Amino acid sequence: MDNLEFLFKPKSIAVVGASRYKEKVGNVVFRNLLSTFNGKLYPINPKAEDVEGVKAYKSVKDIPDNIDLGIITVPREVVPQVMEEFVEKGVKASIIITAGFREVGEEKLEYEVINIARKGGIRVLGPNTFGIITPEFNATFTYTDVKRGNIGLVVQSGGLGVYMLNWAQKFRVGISYMISLGNQADVKEYEVIDYLSRDAETRAIFVYLEGVSDGTSFLETLPDAVRRKPVVFLKGGTTSQGASAAKTHTGSLAGSFEVFKAAVKTVGGILIDNLHDMLNLAKILMYSEPISNEILVITNSGGHGVLVSDEIERNGLKMIEIPEWMKRELGKILPPTSIPKNPLDLTGDANRERYYNALKIVNSLNCTKLVIVQALPMVSCTDIARTISNFKGKGVIGITMGLDEDMALKILESTGIPAYTFPEDAVRAIRYYTSRPLPRKKIRTVQPIESAMELIKEKKSLKDYEAMKLMEIYGIKTPKWGTALSEDEAQQIADNIGYPVVMKISPDEPLHKTELKGVVVNVEKEDVKKVYAQLSKITKRVMIQQQLSGLEVYVGGLKDPVFGHVVLVGSGGIYVEVLRNVAYALSPVYEDEAQELLVESKIHDMLTARKRGYDENSLIRTIVSISRMIVDLNIKEMDINPVFVNEYGAFATDVRIVIS
Amino acid sequence: MDNLEFLFKPKSIAVVGASRYKEKVGNVVFRNLLSTFNGKLYPINPKAEDVEGVKAYKSVKDIPDNIDLGIITVPREVVPQVMEEFVEKGVKASIIITAGFREVGEEKLEYEVINIARKGGIRVLGPNTFGIITPEFNATFTYTDVKRGNIGLVVQSGGLGVYMLNWAQKFRVGISYMISLGNQADVKEYEVIDYLSRDAETRAIFVYLEGVSDGTSFLETLPDAVRRKPVVFLKGGTTSQGASAAKTHTGSLAGSFEVFKAAVKTVGGILIDNLHDMLNLAKILMYSEPISNEILVITNSGGHGVLVSDEIERNGLKMIEIPEWMKRELGKILPPTSIPKNPLDLTGDANRERYYNALKIVNSLNCTKLVIVQALPMVSCTDIARTISNFKGKGVIGITMGLDEDMALKILESTGIPAYTFPEDAVRAIRYYTSRPLPRKKIRTVQPIESAMELIKEKKSLKDYEAMKLMEIYGIKTPKWGTALSEDEAQQIADNIGYPVVMKISPDEPLHKTELKGVVVNVEKEDVKKVYAQLSKITKRVMIQQQLSGLEVYVGGLKDPVFGHVVLVGSGGIYVEVLRNVAYALSPVYEDEAQELLVESKIHDMLTARKRGYDENSLIRTIVSISRMIVDLNIKEMDINPVFVNEYGAFATDVRIVIS
Repeated sequence: MDNLEFLFKPKSIAVVGASRYKEKVGNVVFRNLLSTFNGKLYPINPKAEDVEGVKAYKSVKDIPDNIDLGIITVPREVVPQVMEEFVEKGVKASIIITAGFREVGEEKLEYEVINIARKGGIRVLGPNTFGIITPEFNATFTYTDVKRGNIGLVVQSGGLGVYMLNWAQKFRVGISYMISLGNQADVKEYEVIDYLSRDAETRAIFVYLEGVSDGTSFLETLPDAVRRKPVVFLKGGTTSQGASAAKTHTGSLAGSFEVFKAAVKTVGGILIDNLHDMLNLAKILMYSEPISNEILVITNSGGHGVLVSDEIERNGLKMIEIPEWMKRELGKILPPTSIPKNPLDLTGDANRERYYNALKIVNSLNCTKLVIVQALPMVSCTDIARTISNFKGKGVIGITMGLDEDMALKILESTGIPAYTFPEDAVRAIRYYTSRPLPRKKIRTVQPIESAMELIKEKKSLKDYEAMKLMEIYGIKTPKWGTALSEDEAQQIADNIGYPVVMKISPDEPLHKTELKGVVVNVEKEDVKKVYAQLSKITKRVMIQQQLSGLEVYVGGLKDPVFGHVVLVGSGGIYVEVLRNVAYALSPVYEDEAQELLVESKIHDMLTARKRGYDENSLIRTIVSISRMIVDLNIKEMDINPVFVNEYGAFATDVRIVIS
Repeated sequence: MDNLEFLFKPKSIAVVGASRYKEKVGNVVFRNLLSTFNGKLYPINPKAEDVEGVKAYKSVKDIPDNIDLGIITVPREVVPQVMEEFVEKGVKASIIITAGFREVGEEKLEYEVINIARKGGIRVLGPNTFGIITPEFNATFTYTDVKRGNIGLVVQSGGLGVYMLNWAQKFRVGISYMISLGNQADVKEYEVIDYLSRDAETRAIFVYLEGVSDGTSFLETLPDAVRRKPVVFLKGGTTSQGASAAKTHTGSLAGSFEVFKAAVKTVGGILIDNLHDMLNLAKILMYSEPISNEILVITNSGGHGVLVSDEIERNGLKMIEIPEWMKRELGKILPPTSIPKNPLDLTGDANRERYYNALKIVNSLNCTKLVIVQALPMVSCTDIARTISNFKGKGVIGITMGLDEDMALKILESTGIPAYTFPEDAVRAIRYYTSRPLPRKKIRTVQPIESAMELIKEKKSLKDYEAMKLMEIYGIKTPKWGTALSEDEAQQIADNIGYPVVMKISPDEPLHKTELKGVVVNVEKEDVKKVYAQLSKITKRVMIQQQLSGLEVYVGGLKDPVFGHVVLVGSGGIYVEVLRNVAYALSPVYEDEAQELLVESKIHDMLTARKRGYDENSLIRTIVSISRMIVDLNIKEMDINPVFVNEYGAFATDVRIVIS
């Protein structure tokens, strides 16, 4: 058994630095354990006989018992020595609450401590962690009461951990585990998520991260975890301002947010925007109510119906069509002035009975039923909360608006039905939940083609004609092309290609040719020599290509330091800079993922607009090939801008490649 | 004095249909008035001696007193007769709470009632209204308590009116007026907004609308109202699903949301997305705390700092730079491991004193100070709420997170400081408030040019060469062009223009030429006759143009049934359909508005990318000219797609015009 188990399920715990002074972190942690932990608990304090009435020891070595988990709250200078004693004692796991390590530039001290721990096979959470809460104990320094439940929290920031405990308490979200990761010097987020995904008391996992240190293990471990239960991610440091704040916080370098997004999508995680969304989603994930992206809105206020319909459409969800027979049945219970449709307006004089009858009629409709009640003289929120409770399991969600809404929310939640005050919060949660991606495992096999290896051998970057050859080796279409070193050669090549042609400079390094005014289009037979003469002032070698038309697409590749090779797709030419409609995916991609990239970046819409018959399949094959090539050849950075896509296929016309 | 005043400030009120039965609307309204109104109050009930202990009359005509305001709650069939009696009695204003008029297809009955009222000069609110609440009385049928304050509410939906009163009560937002518009058969939203903008007790106005019936008055009245105080709009029926719900609701046809957005922008209103934003914004508008788009974040949790920085950047707001001297001062009060910067992390052991000292040091910084406190063992929300209260007037906003946050919110609000639980709510509110547009008055003068009038006379639409001539009359650049009716003529025109040329069919009706395969580009001298022969199979007349390059922009115009002429700008060619990056503005536009359109649609970014020196000013002049032309000539629908913008100017190449 991995010693990680002892971090979460220890039979004995020692707290090093368990102080007698109530305001000290070591004392708070010890008291929290004393009131929650049923195993053996030992305070370590060289200056005290006892702590909180429990006999204290000068060192773990003095304890006449095995110690599974050692918690450290002493100043950082002493931590290496304490860890040495843990090794001698045979402690299995450790939590270092003490701060002042990597997050403030003391990497060396952190490495020292972890190296000592590794000698003894001790797993270490932290340093700079706020502690952990499990179903069996509270080893943190917060006073917050915790409502027990089925949501697991994993956080990199202590302050956010406390915040989440607060909101969980306030909004009645029950917690199974709260684990503050700290600097992740040893135990990493993916191990904790994996552990919780196997834990019977946890139904869904929420993770706040500022950075990921071991992308490979993240990608290997999490798809299986996500198959077991939903994992929701919130990332701090998504923008440049946030990232600069993140650097000085828990000492983790925030990588590119776009790549992180692609990684979360790959493993099948749900990525949310903010803490509020976390709460909204928790309300769905806590319960087992089935949730669909087709929605029926039932309300007693037309205005609410209008606003919710808007919100549903904006979130890309569907308003379900009510079948005709059901409309006829609904007609019988509605006032004559009301027409049965979705949103279903039961009108302002709807009472409990009308809600009940309406829900009974639509009971067999396979969709999410958003039941909105606006408290009015003839109906209260609690009335309808009780009515809705009769339909649990049929996809109901309650939205209660009125002065008694808190009581109504409690009634719904105690029945196990998701309940909200703001309809837009429910709609966002449904969108996140129903659009969660499928988990995938990215296996990066390498099988480079011999001629490709030969081509890139000992090169830092490729010349453009080399890059064009590489495309051809990988089965990617190119326009007819050739390079010329003289006017006569240029004329001959152009004559072979056919007119008009494009002529560009052909430098030895990848450069922005347009900015150097090194590209001339629409070159006719009679102008070839003139254009060669002009371009050869910049580079002697000139590239000549068949001139193509079609949609200009950008396809790129890069190697991310954390998550490895990534393929990028977006609008080509100037649009890539302005629209920033670039979609990212981890390499390699399969055909369906390549197609998703085209949809996400809107290239799919552009290709199919006006029924031009552009060859999307050829572009998909190009993206798949590129995604394999960058892995095979360990390419650092590359782009094709543009790939021309027309009715004859996708053609790489300008390729820049920087090899690692 | 307009009789509208009597709707809001009556000295005497009669309630027609004041029932003796407690559950009847007429009884609830009468009781609400009885407990709030200090003027003279008369129940009208032909079957009762008294109602709630007040002597009842059979008709208003029997009342031995003048009646300023008559409220009607009787069945719709009786309403015309009641209104006749109001006219005879000389009633000044009326509220028709009764429903079942235009919203269910009974337009005729509604017109009948209003025509009667007009004979007597009676102003009518409704029908199908939920009533009104003023600082002096409650004439609605809700039981909700109302916290008095300075926010005015104007709503088209009764259910939403009740909802807003509920949340106002729950979140301690004080209300001056709540006015339910109903069907707006007489009194319109712009009159009510104008009235509230002049009301001394109202500080900001929130409006929920599903449609606007009189766009001209809306545009004339509201810029002045907005200059007096902020007006915030929420629109129901923004998407096609929402709009379909809106139609059956209060019977108003929801127009194009994009045009409504342009109208709200023109009058300087703030347009929000949902009810939640309304609440967020109310928290800022209720108080006088100065709000800037530059923000300093002060927190005791690094994680919160990271997340809020992200949110601030996503909302287009700025993190202010702390001056060096201030950083030095802050360094003295922070622990050695913390570096003073924005977000300012006071660290987890920050107490009340550290917050106070930090706020004192940054006091002179001219920005919004978002002070976040996460309750921790060493600090509580209430502690910091009291600390923040010392800095009122310096742009502070409090975000309190912890179990005592409700108490903290109350402390801040009673001091008059905006206070939130979720930082993202505060950031959104700041964004809405600081990016509100300047109010403008659109005056639609018409001064058509004689040659233009001649050109369009008695035409339903223009042929393409007529449209090109119209461009020239309005000073808009065109490429060199001509139309040919024979191969020889084509050759001659093309020779005059210079090669290559573009050749297109020239139909008598505006058509999508590309879809008919009626456009050939890159035509060289030797191909002109061949291309003419081919195109003339579709239309005998062929348009020949100088071939241009540059950015393709779409410029359009339309006449909206509610708000009149609108100019549209977006990406040209295929991108207009896929990206939908089209920005709208009411005509006419000035140069600064045209430039805003270019920024909003990202055309500005596209024009200036890669420093290509494209002539943005020429495009701005083109947009201004088009915006005047569509008004001058009362054009129903037009587009130029594309306008080619390059270093020589903006050139209209393909123009389609449908005249009213």
